[in-house]
Amino acid sequence: MPIVTLLTDFGSADEYVGVMKGVILTMASNAVIVDISHQIEPQNISQAAFMLQSAYTYFPIGSIHVIVVDPGVGTERNIVGIFDGRYFFLAPDNGVLTLIKETGTIEEVYRLNNRKYWLKNISRTFHGRDIIAPTAAHLANGVRLNQLGTAVDPSSLLTIELLQPYINNDGSISGHVVAIDRFGNLITSIAENLISAMDWRQIKVRIGNKTIRGIVSSYTAVPQHTPLAIIGSRGYIEISVSFGSAQALFQVTQRDEVTVF
Amino acid sequence: MPIVTLLTDFGSADEYVGVMKGVILTMASNAVIVDISHQIEPQNISQAAFMLQSAYTYFPIGSIHVIVVDPGVGTERNIVGIFDGRYFFLAPDNGVLTLIKETGTIEEVYRLNNRKYWLKNISRTFHGRDIIAPTAAHLANGVRLNQLGTAVDPSSLLTIELLQPYINNDGSISGHVVAIDRFGNLITSIAENLISAMDWRQIKVRIGNKTIRGIVSSYTAVPQHTPLAIIGSRGYIEISVSFGSAQALFQVTQRDEVTVF
Amino acid sequence: MPIVTLLTDFGSADEYVGVMKGVILTMASNAVIVDISHQIEPQNISQAAFMLQSAYTYFPIGSIHVIVVDPGVGTERNIVGIFDGRYFFLAPDNGVLTLIKETGTIEEVYRLNNRKYWLKNISRTFHGRDIIAPTAAHLANGVRLNQLGTAVDPSSLLTIELLQPYINNDGSISGHVVAIDRFGNLITSIAENLISAMDWRQIKVRIGNKTIRGIVSSYTAVPQHTPLAIIGSRGYIEISVSFGSAQALFQVTQRDEVTVF
Repeated sequence: MPIVTLLTDFGSADEYVGVMKGVILTMASNAVIVDISHQIEPQNISQAAFMLQSAYTYFPIGSIHVIVVDPGVGTERNIVGIFDGRYFFLAPDNGVLTLIKETGTIEEVYRLNNRKYWLKNISRTFHGRDIIAPTAAHLANGVRLNQLGTAVDPSSLLTIELLQPYINNDGSISGHVVAIDRFGNLITSIAENLISAMDWRQIKVRIGNKTIRGIVSSYTAVPQHTPLAIIGSRGYIEISVSFGSAQALFQVTQRDEVTVF
Repeated sequence: MPIVTLLTDFGSADEYVGVMKGVILTMASNAVIVDISHQIEPQNISQAAFMLQSAYTYFPIGSIHVIVVDPGVGTERNIVGIFDGRYFFLAPDNGVLTLIKETGTIEEVYRLNNRKYWLKNISRTFHGRDIIAPTAAHLANGVRLNQLGTAVDPSSLLTIELLQPYINNDGSISGHVVAIDRFGNLITSIAENLISAMDWRQIKVRIGNKTIRGIVSSYTAVPQHTPLAIIGSRGYIEISVSFGSAQALFQVTQRDEVTVF
Repeated sequence: MPIVTLLTDFGSADEYVGVMKGVILTMASNAVIVDISHQIEPQNISQAAFMLQSAYTYFPIGSIHVIVVDPGVGTERNIVGIFDGRYFFLAPDNGVLTLIKETGTIEEVYRLNNRKYWLKNISRTFHGRDIIAPTAAHLANGVRLNQLGTAVDPSSLLTIELLQPYINNDGSISGHVVAIDRFGNLITSIAENLISAMDWRQIKVRIGNKTIRGIVSSYTAVPQHTPLAIIGSRGYIEISVSFGSAQALFQVTQRDEVTVF
């Protein structure tokens, strides 16, 4: 039973996600469809790139990951299908697959231009429904990626500049807030392995003009309503407030800088 | 594997949608349930009618569309089951099926009054759970519509006045904003075929005291943050802002007038 | 086909729920996963306890109910698996199962400490993904509860003080608002059977300094925008406003008191 995941900026109020599922199930009646999120900020490609990286490996090998954050819909931008040896990814070629390209081993990239596998009528604004959903369904049915379009060189895949952590002259490490979750946790770009040589009890994490000392091992290791730093579920430093919201306390937004020393 | 779709005003915070799914799966364990939306404004029957029309044909023939926007729950209003030759629709008879009646060919209408197919205890406030979900499950299991209730004349189906576009004395066409999506796109009631005889480069679309010239073919055909008119995925004129929100720019609400000339 | 339900405070914006589903489907490919809600207020254990009670019996016997509202994640708090003769419940042992314990007949309680059934890497912040989801998957696959951990005495299950209705000296009954739904309905803790001996036409329901007379049988039994009291779908007194929101009208919040006399 093939799994198709959906990651979009469509929200949940409109019919768009349901319609994509209808198209997929019309063509691949035994597909199992799982929502990763539809709350990507409209057109926020880098947010989707980070979320995809945090989620895709938790699905069965062979899963088809569909990402539709597509500000260029209706233009000549490509839609691509990728296989990295384990998973398929279908998305507009706009950088949303940057982290898949940079951290994985892409084996095949196809431009999904075989109209035989699209819906008959192609709208100007909803290629998720008209092109990507039916292509995903055919892939789920066993059609091979090389039948769905034309091979292109993996190096041609468009990437975007994602904020990368860097080491400062004084040895401290700076990164950024790349996501803020429902609890107000600030998820940074500083991976656990970047701080593995440091003493976690003495480590300082600076955000804005505040500094947190130590990396703790649970949200309750500090008094309630106190800030803390912890290695979160994505494997990166997160800044949290015990029984509270770090976003509310620190008043930060995505892309704000975080420094560890 | 029969598909049951759900379109309601229940939101996603409460247990209501999950409970309906539980009831359906208890009785029809192989049903596949797909959410169209649960974010219909409370009691907004016309919004649900428009969304249903935009979504239902994208599902497999034979799908069972369940619509629960039901301000009259607990009164003597009917609950009906309809077959249009391709799809089933189960809903309160309150006008939510107006567009199905007016644009389709309804073959059968049944008042769903056979209590044998309901839950044992019927609450006063949640017939979606107690009547419609179990009836949908039995339909998915192969029970026929005529076993679920009493045939009624299709013409007796209640309809509501939905805003229809009209042609003005000067030949211009006026319609309304019938939906606003997550991106702030203003979806109008003016279908593509109404403007097929006009010159799309010269067309003017007026909303409030602003006028947009031309129907473009992608959101990026204009500079960023500029308004545009486009044929949207529903097949109707939509007013958008490239990389922005037309709702925010124009400060309009549903039912505001739009004129094309 | 085993059903796994999910009830969490994760919201729908982040990847957390999707990732849990990926883990479950990786290990139990034929599991059917149903969302009850992910909009529990962060860390609100009693809200989850009430919602669980309102929902769990509507699922097929044998369903596995997974509840992840887990402020103590990463501490020594237990994660437990319970069987009540009909359903399984997997949750942190923090009181979220209080009503299952108090109103049901718990047959078996296991501390889910068999790491063989967990993911290999256990994060500090997301045991829903690393421990509970894989354990649920194995349970769905037919692994028995007693293989997943160590039996503990049902009486040791942690319970929390949930607001219970009480009878006043003058014979009136006081309860509390335990939930407020999307429609602004105020769901109280006063069950239908508590008022079965009273005359429903004469009953008075006081909230704040307002009093509603009578229990009606539909939202439309009163003029539009008028408050009313009704037995809601959970079987408890609810305070509503016809075509409006009782929350907006009465400006109450959860835990506010309601008195019936």
